[in-house]
Amino acid sequence: MTKYSIILQPSGSRGQVEEGQSIRSAARDLGVEIESICAENATCGKCMVLIEEGRFEKYNIDSKRSNLSPVSTEEAAYFARRPKLLKDKGWEVGQVRLSCQCKIRGDVLVNVPEESRGNKQIVRKSASNREIEVKPAIRKYLVTTTPPNLERPIADWERLAKGLETSMGLVHGIDAKLPRWYDLTIDYQCLRTLSKTLREAKWSVTVSVWQDKEVIEVQAGYAEDSYGAAVDIGSTTVALYLCNLRTGEMLAAESEMNPQIVYGEDVMSRIQYAIENPDGLEKLHKAIISTLNKLLKQAAKTANIQTEEILEMVLVGNSTMHHILLNLHPKDLGLAPFVPAIHKSMDVKARELGLQINPSGNIHVLPTIASFVGADTSAMIVAEEPHKQDENWLLIDVGTNAELILGNRKRLLCTSTPTGPALEGAHVEYGMRAAPGAMERIEIDEKTLEPRYRVIGVTGWNTDHAEFKGQVKGICGSAIIDGVAELFRAGIVDSRGKFKQGLESRRIRKGESGWEYVIAWAEETSIGRDIPMTQQDVRQIQLAKAALFTAARTLLKRSGLESPDKIILAGGFGSYIDKEKAMLIGLIPDCELDKVYAVGNAAGDGARIALLNVEKRNEIDGVTRKVERFELPTDPEFQNQFMLATSFPHMSEPFPHIAHLIPNRVADPMAKNFMSK
Amino acid sequence: MTKYSIILQPSGSRGQVEEGQSIRSAARDLGVEIESICAENATCGKCMVLIEEGRFEKYNIDSKRSNLSPVSTEEAAYFARRPKLLKDKGWEVGQVRLSCQCKIRGDVLVNVPEESRGNKQIVRKSASNREIEVKPAIRKYLVTTTPPNLERPIADWERLAKGLETSMGLVHGIDAKLPRWYDLTIDYQCLRTLSKTLREAKWSVTVSVWQDKEVIEVQAGYAEDSYGAAVDIGSTTVALYLCNLRTGEMLAAESEMNPQIVYGEDVMSRIQYAIENPDGLEKLHKAIISTLNKLLKQAAKTANIQTEEILEMVLVGNSTMHHILLNLHPKDLGLAPFVPAIHKSMDVKARELGLQINPSGNIHVLPTIASFVGADTSAMIVAEEPHKQDENWLLIDVGTNAELILGNRKRLLCTSTPTGPALEGAHVEYGMRAAPGAMERIEIDEKTLEPRYRVIGVTGWNTDHAEFKGQVKGICGSAIIDGVAELFRAGIVDSRGKFKQGLESRRIRKGESGWEYVIAWAEETSIGRDIPMTQQDVRQIQLAKAALFTAARTLLKRSGLESPDKIILAGGFGSYIDKEKAMLIGLIPDCELDKVYAVGNAAGDGARIALLNVEKRNEIDGVTRKVERFELPTDPEFQNQFMLATSFPHMSEPFPHIAHLIPNRVADPMAKNFMSK
Repeated sequence: MTKYSIILQPSGSRGQVEEGQSIRSAARDLGVEIESICAENATCGKCMVLIEEGRFEKYNIDSKRSNLSPVSTEEAAYFARRPKLLKDKGWEVGQVRLSCQCKIRGDVLVNVPEESRGNKQIVRKSASNREIEVKPAIRKYLVTTTPPNLERPIADWERLAKGLETSMGLVHGIDAKLPRWYDLTIDYQCLRTLSKTLREAKWSVTVSVWQDKEVIEVQAGYAEDSYGAAVDIGSTTVALYLCNLRTGEMLAAESEMNPQIVYGEDVMSRIQYAIENPDGLEKLHKAIISTLNKLLKQAAKTANIQTEEILEMVLVGNSTMHHILLNLHPKDLGLAPFVPAIHKSMDVKARELGLQINPSGNIHVLPTIASFVGADTSAMIVAEEPHKQDENWLLIDVGTNAELILGNRKRLLCTSTPTGPALEGAHVEYGMRAAPGAMERIEIDEKTLEPRYRVIGVTGWNTDHAEFKGQVKGICGSAIIDGVAELFRAGIVDSRGKFKQGLESRRIRKGESGWEYVIAWAEETSIGRDIPMTQQDVRQIQLAKAALFTAARTLLKRSGLESPDKIILAGGFGSYIDKEKAMLIGLIPDCELDKVYAVGNAAGDGARIALLNVEKRNEIDGVTRKVERFELPTDPEFQNQFMLATSFPHMSEPFPHIAHLIPNRVADPMAKNFMSK
Repeated sequence: MTKYSIILQPSGSRGQVEEGQSIRSAARDLGVEIESICAENATCGKCMVLIEEGRFEKYNIDSKRSNLSPVSTEEAAYFARRPKLLKDKGWEVGQVRLSCQCKIRGDVLVNVPEESRGNKQIVRKSASNREIEVKPAIRKYLVTTTPPNLERPIADWERLAKGLETSMGLVHGIDAKLPRWYDLTIDYQCLRTLSKTLREAKWSVTVSVWQDKEVIEVQAGYAEDSYGAAVDIGSTTVALYLCNLRTGEMLAAESEMNPQIVYGEDVMSRIQYAIENPDGLEKLHKAIISTLNKLLKQAAKTANIQTEEILEMVLVGNSTMHHILLNLHPKDLGLAPFVPAIHKSMDVKARELGLQINPSGNIHVLPTIASFVGADTSAMIVAEEPHKQDENWLLIDVGTNAELILGNRKRLLCTSTPTGPALEGAHVEYGMRAAPGAMERIEIDEKTLEPRYRVIGVTGWNTDHAEFKGQVKGICGSAIIDGVAELFRAGIVDSRGKFKQGLESRRIRKGESGWEYVIAWAEETSIGRDIPMTQQDVRQIQLAKAALFTAARTLLKRSGLESPDKIILAGGFGSYIDKEKAMLIGLIPDCELDKVYAVGNAAGDGARIALLNVEKRNEIDGVTRKVERFELPTDPEFQNQFMLATSFPHMSEPFPHIAHLIPNRVADPMAKNFMSK
């Protein structure tokens, strides 16, 4: 058998292949996947490649003989249907070929354009800037069968399954471990319309296969795209991302308030509602299902598709949201010893939950880790992959409740702690959510004790403006951290959080509820009142940060570590806080500042990754099975540690990275034991 | 390690086992399964054995030391709860032991009573009188776990799954290939009540596992029995058998008319109804589901259980009944080229079909073979096992449509043919169903041409009674075959089925529709009219038997066989016909008469076997995949063969076994080619 050289660009893969092999097949042998969904029928055009002039190494091919088989009728017909594509790209037929059709007859140099490459990758922002391979749970295959006749009256499903076996083999290569036709299954509801579709489509259909085993959709004719939705159900906000499962592209992102809020602000009050009302769970469950259906409809409209074209959903959320979504009673999540009904991930048919995607589609719910460490934390692990690191990473998802993961490839520990709403600007006198008019940054000059601040929607600092009137409404989360840190740094409050006596500043005064520091005078605000930070506000932040810090410390101690190698802050809150200030007040443990990352909505990212890459699902099930869970209240040292942690850092030793900012470096006798082990 | 001898009766298995091993574990090592469902907790008592006195081989045990560990507290407590059992059986504690509890400390001779033996068998009537091993798809396990606490706040499902892994291992032995706990799954609806049940049951529950992988029921406390239903959906009658899945015992058998009859008598007219009416399928589907639910309720009442305790159903029926049950449109079953939607068996959740057993239970539907060879034929194969024979068996299920299977372990062929309703007594002038007042046997004296007959509900022949007045209503299927055979044997009709001219008998006369033979005079009947068999009746039977015979012949020819080694007649009809008479008119091919068996409702038997023995399900899927299907109309010889086969056998050669009965042994020139190949 004559062999020829083939080089594939841009990967540079090269090798000797047999005469007569198609470029696509040769490329696979050399480890380069080229897309195809039409079972090499010259129909889908996914496998287009560019033939470079290269007659390299040897130059002995006479000009009448091409190094490739000539353009076939089917191939010509494909390109004839796409004049615009050829014009836009400036390609000529012959230069561009369908790699499934053209056979190798001599040495060739081939360029595989990005859109034809298999195992597509999407880049996403994360602590590690990884690329995500697109390996969806659902793949489409064009299957064309001969119609049944009296000689071969084989049933519709078996006819399709045999065609599908062939088609899957052609797309993935015969070596791939794919099921035989008789091991393939079809969803019962999908089977119900199979016979009609096959006949209407004249026995040429596109089949959507879930997890290489179950047929969940059969469409007439050729169809290339399928869609999926990733959803992060937060206690406050529900976010849905609609993605193309073939390309990984995000087509729509929609969000809504979580409608369960009317039954309780936080998870504990919703659990309480479900316990106290006979139809409580039913109401909470129906509310979230109807909101998800609304978001699905909106997203489909944005992407200009039908909701029936959405074939899978991946859902994440804290354990309470997870339970309510699945209509599992959340009672035991809220009562000691705080256990979920199930940890393991689940696949439930959309029709069982009343979710209005394709009724044969599956809803994949990521695993829960503990009662207060839910599927959203699993998603965060998927997104950041601490289990693949040599370094010890500390992941913190900050919200009303904070979840913490610490560890590396050898061991992962997790815990959670309620932090209260202070970090999100609630229960702080002039606190508000991040919105125009909210202060987002505060600095205090340690000499003059005068502040300056930035306001969302206004450029620069307030002091940059000649006149700054009526623009401030309140203080959002990030500025609250700033404010407390600056009060401490400037020496206005001591390491125990108390306003110091006798400082000379007109801004420090005794207000209605005790000492306070005025950041904005009434004329700078739109509310016509001075906006101060009060002793009470400082106290709220101290409680919140003490809880978070104690949780982190407990994990570090159990791992025998002094500090993490990297800190990853997930959640919207983490994206806006000043990490130096956060460390200064002891909100997060000491760490090199450039090793502290804010990654935004890691739970949503993780949901999207699990939607686009099916391999991540088994992976996270395995990882979460091994995560070691600690419930803080069981730690006898917790209360003691917690009380000590309400203080601000005061000695340089355990906080080398922010030591230069800590005022009064002489130890405060009251807080001497703060870092004791 | 000291070893001791153990002998197990009645099997006689013997061997050396290690000191300290339990009898149950030692027995398993010697290949003797002893029942247990309580995970060796001394709770279920399934593993009771009798200790025979035997201190065999060596007799050196001093009398103070028992060869077994003493009766434990748990064991004593078990027997204390069952004084009646001990009294009834005449057993003493110590003589009877729980084999999971008592440890071997010396040589022992043990008797395993029938009720403690694993892999129970039920005997059933069939052509082969096989025993059926009870290996249900559903097994129960008692699982007792420690309650969760703050140190081990593992989720309810994972806690249960780990306990279940242990329990399954204890019941089946650690070597059995059982899934690990994290590979077990739980049905979504079953999960919804898990947390509540576990707590109410104080963490001791009985778990029902389907196919060794999916938990479908969790009951508080200890429960040993589970139930299943096998159903044969005939076009006319629906029969349901309720069985105990542990013992194999049949607890109830219920039947009802198929309610679809109001939409059409036979399958073709029901297919037509579904095609012509937009809601036709829906009506047919709902009708059968509601009848099944009614039968389930009746059967549960008879057996004194709740329908929720029924955890599985196995359903069979012809392809049209199969499709309508599954709400699949039957249109293409009735139109050329006659293909089903699916061959393969299916498992569908009861709740998807609205069948009112446990909603997490599965409905298993046996595979279809062809458009007119349905899941009922698959069930017949399960019951009779032609695929395990060296001989060539011909299985015939006779009804309005007849299905035929021919072959052995190497090859199975199948076909089907419409036979019309004549064989069931319809379209025959005085035909009726088998019921009191129906003639069931007819004989005609070939000299006097006088008949005698038997009537259902009356002992002996009519001629045995001094006076026989007003007792006959009509002729049922078996008597119609008899009548036609006797008319032929007595020389009243010729081999082409025509009444001969010039015979001297007052019973032969010209009636309204042609020649006829009076079997019962008006005064013998309850209808006050003479009951004859007419030329038309004979013609009807000729058409039916010609169809059946041609089908059988086609299969024989394709197999290169002259005749089958055994003929198995399934269906109610086969049970009552006189096989010699059936052969005489050429209804079935020639075969040794004592190799012709009537097996009754083989489809119902097969459904019950598939319900009780899960291994049969994979087996039949594999067998039906390999069955070769022939559609008769595609055979060019069919019409020709069919016309020839309307004649009755006339030459001794091809019918050696009934040759002595054939009148006029000189060849009839018109029928000369009857057996031509």
